[in-house]
Amino acid sequence: MGVTDASKRILLGRKLRSSQLGETLLPKRIALPVFASDALSSVAYAPDEIFLMLAIAGASAYVWSWQIAVAVAVVMTAVIASYRQTVHAYPSGGGDYEVATTNLGPRAGTTVASALLVDYVLTVAVSISSGAQYAASALPFLVGHEATFATAMVVLLAAINLRGVRESGSVFAVPTYAFMVAILGMCAYGLVRLLTGTLPQAESADLQIIPQPGFEEPLTTAALIFLLARAFSSGCAALTGVEAISNGVPAFRRPKSKNAATTLLLLGSIAVTMMISVIVLARQMGVKYVEPHELDRLRTATGEMLPEGYDQGTLIAQVARGIFDGFPPGFYVVVSVTGLILLLAANTAFNGFPVLGSILAQDGFAPRALASRGDRLAYSNGIVFLAVMSIVLILAFDAEVTRLIQLYIVGVFVSFNLSQLGMIKHWTRHLATERDPATRRRMVRSRAINTIGLSFTAVVLVIVVLTKFTEGAWITILAMGFFYVLMRRIRRHYDEVALELAADESDKVLPTRVHAIVLVSKLHKPTLRALAFAKASRPNVLEAVYVSSDQAATNTLLGEWEDRGFDVPLKVLFSPYRELVRPVVEYAVEIRRGNPRGVVAVYIPEYVVGHWWEQLLHNQTALRLKGRLLFAPGVMVISVPYQLRSSQVALERVKRQQTRVHAGDVRRGRLVDPDDRGPSRPTRR
Amino acid sequence: MGVTDASKRILLGRKLRSSQLGETLLPKRIALPVFASDALSSVAYAPDEIFLMLAIAGASAYVWSWQIAVAVAVVMTAVIASYRQTVHAYPSGGGDYEVATTNLGPRAGTTVASALLVDYVLTVAVSISSGAQYAASALPFLVGHEATFATAMVVLLAAINLRGVRESGSVFAVPTYAFMVAILGMCAYGLVRLLTGTLPQAESADLQIIPQPGFEEPLTTAALIFLLARAFSSGCAALTGVEAISNGVPAFRRPKSKNAATTLLLLGSIAVTMMISVIVLARQMGVKYVEPHELDRLRTATGEMLPEGYDQGTLIAQVARGIFDGFPPGFYVVVSVTGLILLLAANTAFNGFPVLGSILAQDGFAPRALASRGDRLAYSNGIVFLAVMSIVLILAFDAEVTRLIQLYIVGVFVSFNLSQLGMIKHWTRHLATERDPATRRRMVRSRAINTIGLSFTAVVLVIVVLTKFTEGAWITILAMGFFYVLMRRIRRHYDEVALELAADESDKVLPTRVHAIVLVSKLHKPTLRALAFAKASRPNVLEAVYVSSDQAATNTLLGEWEDRGFDVPLKVLFSPYRELVRPVVEYAVEIRRGNPRGVVAVYIPEYVVGHWWEQLLHNQTALRLKGRLLFAPGVMVISVPYQLRSSQVALERVKRQQTRVHAGDVRRGRLVDPDDRGPSRPTRR
Repeated sequence: MGVTDASKRILLGRKLRSSQLGETLLPKRIALPVFASDALSSVAYAPDEIFLMLAIAGASAYVWSWQIAVAVAVVMTAVIASYRQTVHAYPSGGGDYEVATTNLGPRAGTTVASALLVDYVLTVAVSISSGAQYAASALPFLVGHEATFATAMVVLLAAINLRGVRESGSVFAVPTYAFMVAILGMCAYGLVRLLTGTLPQAESADLQIIPQPGFEEPLTTAALIFLLARAFSSGCAALTGVEAISNGVPAFRRPKSKNAATTLLLLGSIAVTMMISVIVLARQMGVKYVEPHELDRLRTATGEMLPEGYDQGTLIAQVARGIFDGFPPGFYVVVSVTGLILLLAANTAFNGFPVLGSILAQDGFAPRALASRGDRLAYSNGIVFLAVMSIVLILAFDAEVTRLIQLYIVGVFVSFNLSQLGMIKHWTRHLATERDPATRRRMVRSRAINTIGLSFTAVVLVIVVLTKFTEGAWITILAMGFFYVLMRRIRRHYDEVALELAADESDKVLPTRVHAIVLVSKLHKPTLRALAFAKASRPNVLEAVYVSSDQAATNTLLGEWEDRGFDVPLKVLFSPYRELVRPVVEYAVEIRRGNPRGVVAVYIPEYVVGHWWEQLLHNQTALRLKGRLLFAPGVMVISVPYQLRSSQVALERVKRQQTRVHAGDVRRGRLVDPDDRGPSRPTRR
Repeated sequence: MGVTDASKRILLGRKLRSSQLGETLLPKRIALPVFASDALSSVAYAPDEIFLMLAIAGASAYVWSWQIAVAVAVVMTAVIASYRQTVHAYPSGGGDYEVATTNLGPRAGTTVASALLVDYVLTVAVSISSGAQYAASALPFLVGHEATFATAMVVLLAAINLRGVRESGSVFAVPTYAFMVAILGMCAYGLVRLLTGTLPQAESADLQIIPQPGFEEPLTTAALIFLLARAFSSGCAALTGVEAISNGVPAFRRPKSKNAATTLLLLGSIAVTMMISVIVLARQMGVKYVEPHELDRLRTATGEMLPEGYDQGTLIAQVARGIFDGFPPGFYVVVSVTGLILLLAANTAFNGFPVLGSILAQDGFAPRALASRGDRLAYSNGIVFLAVMSIVLILAFDAEVTRLIQLYIVGVFVSFNLSQLGMIKHWTRHLATERDPATRRRMVRSRAINTIGLSFTAVVLVIVVLTKFTEGAWITILAMGFFYVLMRRIRRHYDEVALELAADESDKVLPTRVHAIVLVSKLHKPTLRALAFAKASRPNVLEAVYVSSDQAATNTLLGEWEDRGFDVPLKVLFSPYRELVRPVVEYAVEIRRGNPRGVVAVYIPEYVVGHWWEQLLHNQTALRLKGRLLFAPGVMVISVPYQLRSSQVALERVKRQQTRVHAGDVRRGRLVDPDDRGPSRPTRR
């Protein structure tokens, strides 16, 4: 533990020292940015996906773009409406997992959980890859190195989260509001230019797109339907992240559910507005957009190949560059804030992952250590796991958003579907007992909304699976299956252990006597303290035990023992091969065998040191001995610590760990108490 | 621990299961091969080094080769004679380290120890690199890949040693005697052919050697002296390993010292005979040998460059190929057994390293965990350290023996010198008190021998440092300095801790009362057992403590508690953030504060599981809690284990570890008891 800690410290710098945590609830104006970054950030890539799917059939297919945008908007409206019902019915913040578990049973809950686990990984991979595209739009030297840049960003995010960040509402509010202002501002300005007839063309407006083989004009009906279905299901990437608020209801100010539902509505309206505006503007400006690795399908107006090294900007980048043609800073602002909100969206996953782990652990589906807020190791392992998995994806798919999107949406819609289904059962169950007509009416209405939501999300799920299975969705489904089986296994193990441990009457029998032995290695303070503590416990038999491998040292100790006039007998165990653990264990087992109804108490004097290198130098034997004695029935092991001066260092370290800030605290309604920020603030408010 | 164990098992296969260790002493005929491989194996590279150093001035300098061989033989005789004195005076097996520490103080001892540590690394690097050369002589496809092959060999040796090898005398005897027979047989046959005038020329006999710039004929006296000095000091590589027997006296049959001294004499005679024979034969056969990366200095008789891809065999390989010109298997036998004994020599270091670590640990110069034979982790870490360091050297020096030799000899001669100096002081000290004339005569004679030994080794050390410092010896000296400082620091740390821990009278005060708290998480068997054990210990106050973060679970527990009619009060600590450790620690500290002369006993029910993955799923909280409570003064921590059925698996594992065979046991006189080899042997002898 000490070494790990030290090496982590070298890697990550000193951890933040935090003060006590308090509970601070979020007003709507802060809650919106805290929970919105994931959902809003998908505006940065969802419209692009619609354009590039349609481009399979050439630029003429772009006539369908706004119909698809409207279809996505309709689905999003249905989903938002559905989650407003969830927020009212489950204000505890359990989200989809709780809804599915409560209404459909633990199997459905585990399915949702495995979908969410996979989604967190993909949120990081997709958001960061998209962010890398934006960075490359603004900084041309990054073109061609997007995967490397994206990997570096994931490492950075992981490092920040491992180190612990003092979060506050403003960390979220500033970039999120900046993003809204930038995008909506750009769209409004673009709309004005459109109405005044001054909207310029995009840089790619004059390009032609060669359709993919099989999609040349005229399209067959089947090809058209398949094309539109693929474009629609890719566009549904815009829906990722809308469920976040349903996990965060407890962090809202009262009335919690109502405020959460209002925020959700606000979030949905903004997201839909942004998406449709961007698509309409891109269409009007004649943007051409194909898959990044199929750039050779783009031709100039005269049918020639594009020059080597041509880089197509993302939709938003192309639109911004066109609209702000006379004002380059406008372009840079839009691209920067978009990159920033994508980073924030990835960070959402780093925040949410440990929270999900903790909920799963409480239900026995994940190692119990994850349940405890204080278990730094479990927390860190989760972050490292998330970072490593998303880096693997980024490198495997070369940071290409389009290919990653194929994996992304399946998981999202699996949990949407199970959640809606759960909500329908929820209302049906409550309707069975509810008698008040007004309440019944509300419930029937809610159930109708959820049913509509389910029918939409079910259709999308089918379309997504059909169009994306071979494109990568199978990986997601495989990963979900893996997590599902793993979680079920963990749960079964805990159940088996619980069964084996279940109390019965036989365990109330008291041991008849306590035979205490105090391990002596030298006559120093820790030994004396252990002897004193053992005596104070007044066992039936008390003896000191010394393991001898050297006659001279043994004689010295026996002499000292006599000189000091201890009233405790000293027993010497002979160990020719300098073994310490085995003789003690054998002696303890032998005592117990002589008196099977008694208990043997082994007192181990330990001294507590501070630095990690001191821990390497001390107490290894005590550790091994304790580990080994645990296997001996009827033996209890008593550590009597003696604190060396240097232990103060370690105590400080432990305390720092305990009071550490965890990323994601803010979305669980836990904020740093502003009145206690340590001595660096000279005055108090 | 569990995970490490599992991953190691996957890497290395199941560990050997051993039976009890017994003490079996070695007869001389077994002791010779056990301790000789390191010393004899240097015949495989020391003559080569003499030849290639002389070759700096061209083939004409080879006239000096036999004089240098004689000079090395003289030094070796003196050293062997000196160590025969050591063996008589220090039969305990402490070797150079003990001699230096006892007679010259701990600083000299630490210096010897750091020299030995560096030497072990170099023994592996040099022996394996030389072995790779021999392998390349016999298997041409290895030419050019010596470093890779050598690295693979080190990894293999490390793996074998990590896994644990059942050693027996024959493992050493067969290859070592085969090597002696092969080399001495080859030399005898060669001598016969020389006397009968049928000795063939070597394959390189017709080649010319272009001298290095500055060493063209006629040589200046200074250049000649420098050349001879370098060749001599490189030839002294033949002395490495002769000190091994002085570390192994306890493993000999009685009379131990006399037998050890006889074996040492035998070893010296064989080594000197081999070395001189090989050099004389190589000279007579006209072998030409230059540094492997200076092959372009070799020319054909007509002065032309050699063909691309020419590979010069080692001296022994060239001699063997020549002598067995009509019988190729003879060549392959000689080369194979030479490779084998080099591997065995490298293994010596893997055996000796943990032994040295254990001696240093007993004296407080190394982490105490190394002192215990049973500490698998410490033992494994030593082997891994040795393997990694030697691989670094092999790769850094591209497995070139000549360059590694430059680093090797300094350390060897530093310990030779300090050891001889120590022996002189030893005899002088004893002469001061000894009155018996016969004994005094023997002592004076011994002192004279050690003085001669010291004067020779001192001269060699000076020559080695002068000729090799810039060639790489500085690396060795730097590494020795590093280990020296590290060991002194470790010792100082232990001394400071011992001072802080020294007992005084204040520690005999008995605590006035024991306040016991039993941690309850659920009402299961481990909790009931902990309660029973706590009751049996009859503390002054006994209460159960439950940390509550969930009202429903708390109510259930309180109900159960009442139903079962426990006579122990249950105290509930409230923890809104699901923290477990902090509330308990704070409560224990508070109790202690209320009664500073009492002691708080915290009983922690623990259940013991078997598989590594079970350990991941359980008990993390108990571990953290114990770790944290150790820092609270006046608190003792009692682990009450409850063994689950699966713990049997872990118990078996622990037992296997404890009875494990360690490489190097044989040279410490510990052999596997031949009467107890488990059920696979159907009959007993």
